[in-house]
Amino acid sequence: MTLNVYLSGEIHTDWREQIVQGAADLDVSFSAPVTDHDASDDCGVAILGAEADKFWHDRKGAQMNAIRTRKGIEDADIVVVRFGDQYKQWNAAFDAGYAAALGKSLITLHGEQHNHPLKEVDAAALAVAETPGQVVQILEYVLTGKLP
Amino acid sequence: MTLNVYLSGEIHTDWREQIVQGAADLDVSFSAPVTDHDASDDCGVAILGAEADKFWHDRKGAQMNAIRTRKGIEDADIVVVRFGDQYKQWNAAFDAGYAAALGKSLITLHGEQHNHPLKEVDAAALAVAETPGQVVQILEYVLTGKLP
Amino acid sequence: MTLNVYLSGEIHTDWREQIVQGAADLDVSFSAPVTDHDASDDCGVAILGAEADKFWHDRKGAQMNAIRTRKGIEDADIVVVRFGDQYKQWNAAFDAGYAAALGKSLITLHGEQHNHPLKEVDAAALAVAETPGQVVQILEYVLTGKLP
Amino acid sequence: MTLNVYLSGEIHTDWREQIVQGAADLDVSFSAPVTDHDASDDCGVAILGAEADKFWHDRKGAQMNAIRTRKGIEDADIVVVRFGDQYKQWNAAFDAGYAAALGKSLITLHGEQHNHPLKEVDAAALAVAETPGQVVQILEYVLTGKLP
Amino acid sequence: MTLNVYLSGEIHTDWREQIVQGAADLDVSFSAPVTDHDASDDCGVAILGAEADKFWHDRKGAQMNAIRTRKGIEDADIVVVRFGDQYKQWNAAFDAGYAAALGKSLITLHGEQHNHPLKEVDAAALAVAETPGQVVQILEYVLTGKLP
Amino acid sequence: MTLNVYLSGEIHTDWREQIVQGAADLDVSFSAPVTDHDASDDCGVAILGAEADKFWHDRKGAQMNAIRTRKGIEDADIVVVRFGDQYKQWNAAFDAGYAAALGKSLITLHGEQHNHPLKEVDAAALAVAETPGQVVQILEYVLTGKLP
Amino acid sequence: MTLNVYLSGEIHTDWREQIVQGAADLDVSFSAPVTDHDASDDCGVAILGAEADKFWHDRKGAQMNAIRTRKGIEDADIVVVRFGDQYKQWNAAFDAGYAAALGKSLITLHGEQHNHPLKEVDAAALAVAETPGQVVQILEYVLTGKLP
Amino acid sequence: MTLNVYLSGEIHTDWREQIVQGAADLDVSFSAPVTDHDASDDCGVAILGAEADKFWHDRKGAQMNAIRTRKGIEDADIVVVRFGDQYKQWNAAFDAGYAAALGKSLITLHGEQHNHPLKEVDAAALAVAETPGQVVQILEYVLTGKLP
Repeated sequence: MTLNVYLSGEIHTDWREQIVQGAADLDVSFSAPVTDHDASDDCGVAILGAEADKFWHDRKGAQMNAIRTRKGIEDADIVVVRFGDQYKQWNAAFDAGYAAALGKSLITLHGEQHNHPLKEVDAAALAVAETPGQVVQILEYVLTGKLP
Repeated sequence: MTLNVYLSGEIHTDWREQIVQGAADLDVSFSAPVTDHDASDDCGVAILGAEADKFWHDRKGAQMNAIRTRKGIEDADIVVVRFGDQYKQWNAAFDAGYAAALGKSLITLHGEQHNHPLKEVDAAALAVAETPGQVVQILEYVLTGKLP
Repeated sequence: MTLNVYLSGEIHTDWREQIVQGAADLDVSFSAPVTDHDASDDCGVAILGAEADKFWHDRKGAQMNAIRTRKGIEDADIVVVRFGDQYKQWNAAFDAGYAAALGKSLITLHGEQHNHPLKEVDAAALAVAETPGQVVQILEYVLTGKLP
Repeated sequence: MTLNVYLSGEIHTDWREQIVQGAADLDVSFSAPVTDHDASDDCGVAILGAEADKFWHDRKGAQMNAIRTRKGIEDADIVVVRFGDQYKQWNAAFDAGYAAALGKSLITLHGEQHNHPLKEVDAAALAVAETPGQVVQILEYVLTGKLP
Repeated sequence: MTLNVYLSGEIHTDWREQIVQGAADLDVSFSAPVTDHDASDDCGVAILGAEADKFWHDRKGAQMNAIRTRKGIEDADIVVVRFGDQYKQWNAAFDAGYAAALGKSLITLHGEQHNHPLKEVDAAALAVAETPGQVVQILEYVLTGKLP
Repeated sequence: MTLNVYLSGEIHTDWREQIVQGAADLDVSFSAPVTDHDASDDCGVAILGAEADKFWHDRKGAQMNAIRTRKGIEDADIVVVRFGDQYKQWNAAFDAGYAAALGKSLITLHGEQHNHPLKEVDAAALAVAETPGQVVQILEYVLTGKLP
Repeated sequence: MTLNVYLSGEIHTDWREQIVQGAADLDVSFSAPVTDHDASDDCGVAILGAEADKFWHDRKGAQMNAIRTRKGIEDADIVVVRFGDQYKQWNAAFDAGYAAALGKSLITLHGEQHNHPLKEVDAAALAVAETPGQVVQILEYVLTGKLP
Repeated sequence: MTLNVYLSGEIHTDWREQIVQGAADLDVSFSAPVTDHDASDDCGVAILGAEADKFWHDRKGAQMNAIRTRKGIEDADIVVVRFGDQYKQWNAAFDAGYAAALGKSLITLHGEQHNHPLKEVDAAALAVAETPGQVVQILEYVLTGKLP
């Protein structure tokens, strides 16, 4: 059994690396969005031509990123969604809703201070973790039955 | 043709009332979450018994509200998602993702200042409105072909 | 908004009547299996001819009842599954799994003493009630936003 | 042709080992839930933190196990569900209903004494076996056309 | 509860009339293919123009009839498929397979002499009836729980 | 039986009126895109604000029209797609592909001169008509079994 | 591109061997039902125990065979259904309907004398072949673009 | 992550070769229709026998090509649809609609002069490219996050 895991959300800390390294010995295949903030923001206009209006600049980029995001979520068995302390992160919550509607197993990853505003998202999740290490332990348990 | 429209998101301003009143003469059937903040927060424990831990207090409520939310979104032709200026509003973005994955026609409603953080959500929408009046005009146009 | 509610499970107490009567003023359409135990057991052979072997006697009946059960679950927004104190009630758990896989909103109804053996079923439910009155309160809240 | 087979249900006898060993020469890929009873019960709190209330202790574990169960059932061509002589085994019946709703080929495995209470579950199955050896023979026949 | 029932198969005896009349007091909505043999065979060319080649004459008609057949089957809760004593009746078996794949409740209706060649079709059915009267009794039982 | 019919394609001749009038006595519910060319082109900017770039002017309008088109096609039993003699009409072929992928019964309506370039579209259709009158006759036959 | 092809229908001539041998150099993966008539008829009772009643003897076998048939059809890109000159072959037509409802590409294979009774089945097919050699040529063309 | 990309549309220029060569170092698996115009037009009659009527000549070919087209689109993550300057190209727009309804990521590829007539198709696309090189850059970005 190989688990396909999509790592959605926050791109400003190294939580993805922690999970990928922690799960290095497990039969897991990870995917994720492009995490280079500038590339992610500008991909649309960089490839398809500049836009005078920031709204359409953003649209072109967001739709190009959606090609990768949809592929990642649709191929996943598990979608981990990380909420950090900064920014609105509506795209993370959007991914969580998208994954939930497709029946994916959802794991949320966030600090306790976000419990209340994330209650609807957590209510659709099969696990609510606070640390990347817990996500690794979940993946290990799901694959091998071994507890930490 | 009757349009089923679910009104998701912000519960602290009267945008729903503006849309419902503006569309009073149209063949639209509206649904929405429970918008009484306290009832929405406490429904789970009020009916099913108190919880010592706020996390499970929230879980019970969020899952009970999900019964209504899912019914509303799944029955809808159009899901309007409103983002206001306060709070995290991750549940609104979650609903948008859920609706998008089900192939619903999505209309977002928010001020220009949120354009950038909402770019992924807007990129999944068929219309991005700034005022409730615009949403009414869209509903009128979709149903009757009449422009304002 | 009309809620379609299927009432699955135990047929030896009056929990269905309590819910139907309690929800008499609500916009709910209820359905349920045939609750006459003898008719339910014997319908297959009564209509399609006797069987020498009890196994096929049961098969004929169970498949005929499945016509009604599937229709009820597939048309439902909410499936309430009641576990009583007697019998194996595997059909109730089967209905719960069937409903969960179809994405129906699941409400379980059982005494606290069954919490542990029902943990997997409860984990797929949006509400775990102990009394028919609580189910009525949930339906009322979901439809009207009113708490008891 | 490789058959993906999920082995659901009873965890206190060696029926899984019998099937896996019996089918060692066949092109079958087996999966199963975690069968270590204690790990299965405690996984949620062991990884995500203790719960004062046994109900939520169980919930955390059941949801974590659901990540594995869903993956196993959704990837399966055939779901074998074993009912033993002890315990309520509602999770087994739940898995059977879940698998049936997804259109999986269902094989039940149980003693004759459970025929009547399992009649609804058996009615959704394509084969009702009494011994692990019969399940192996079915897998062999389905793959190779060879009868015992 | 209204049952939508599609009556597929043999068009040379009055079995449909017997069922419709027998179920006159039940909440059932029936649909069926066009049962005028000549109209059914010639509809394509009568409306869309003659064909020199009988194969395409038949194709045009069969596709036009498929508009009605698909609508009937897709809207149905129950598909009754009648096999009579004459003709190949491959279209009836095709409808049965189509209905089975869509998860419809299938009832077959045929004489005992066809049991063996229809075993695969019967194996996908929830009831195998020999007379139209039995089908009526099934419908009555499913709707009302009353046995004959 | 009510047939829901969506009338897609050419907006510069009165073919829709001919069909609607011809089918006035039939149990058919018609829907269609907005057929006012100017309104259809400008709806996006008229409601949501002007665009400097024609490409985004068009995008806004096309997405707003998609709300109506999708609703119409998804609710339809039959999608009639008309190809006239002018313009590229790629939107008509797009609707045909969309409808085909959803399993809708497709009827194409076009002159013989377009047979070759429309061969892939016609190959997905259940009827290929040349006149609106033929479409009416098909609807009448499908509903009533009556031939002209 | 690998094509998965399921070969359904007649089991008394060597048409499958002709196709498999003819396509030996192509990237095709074939599957098929068990074609040993006696094994196919008796598999159910041979493994799961004898039945006094031929009807249930047949049922047990047909359901066991359905495990293989469904897997074959659901995994297939193309379903070839062969109708020979003998027997009722309702199972072949059933498979064709099942495949059509799942959106599989259907190829029928039969003599001209069956054109009329198979018109509804052929109308759902993308190709109607008369010889196994033609089926091989279709597979070669679909994979390589090469015509005979 | 391997991307499956179907290249639909124009067959008279070398845009497919440009994309395939440009993406030679990327983890992309390409598929496409048969691009030999004569083979594509005549495949049906070449294999299954001549037709007197050009309409059925075309039908036979279009349906045979549909076997390949559907397989390509259904297996694809991304469908690129190219519109050139010649011919009606309704089959390209049909493929775009088909892909959109299946939720595939759509990329259109056409000159600016077609922006207006393709506005409905472009509105369903996640990227609108003008050159094959841009498509290659999109594929590279989606797979690796690298911008040109």
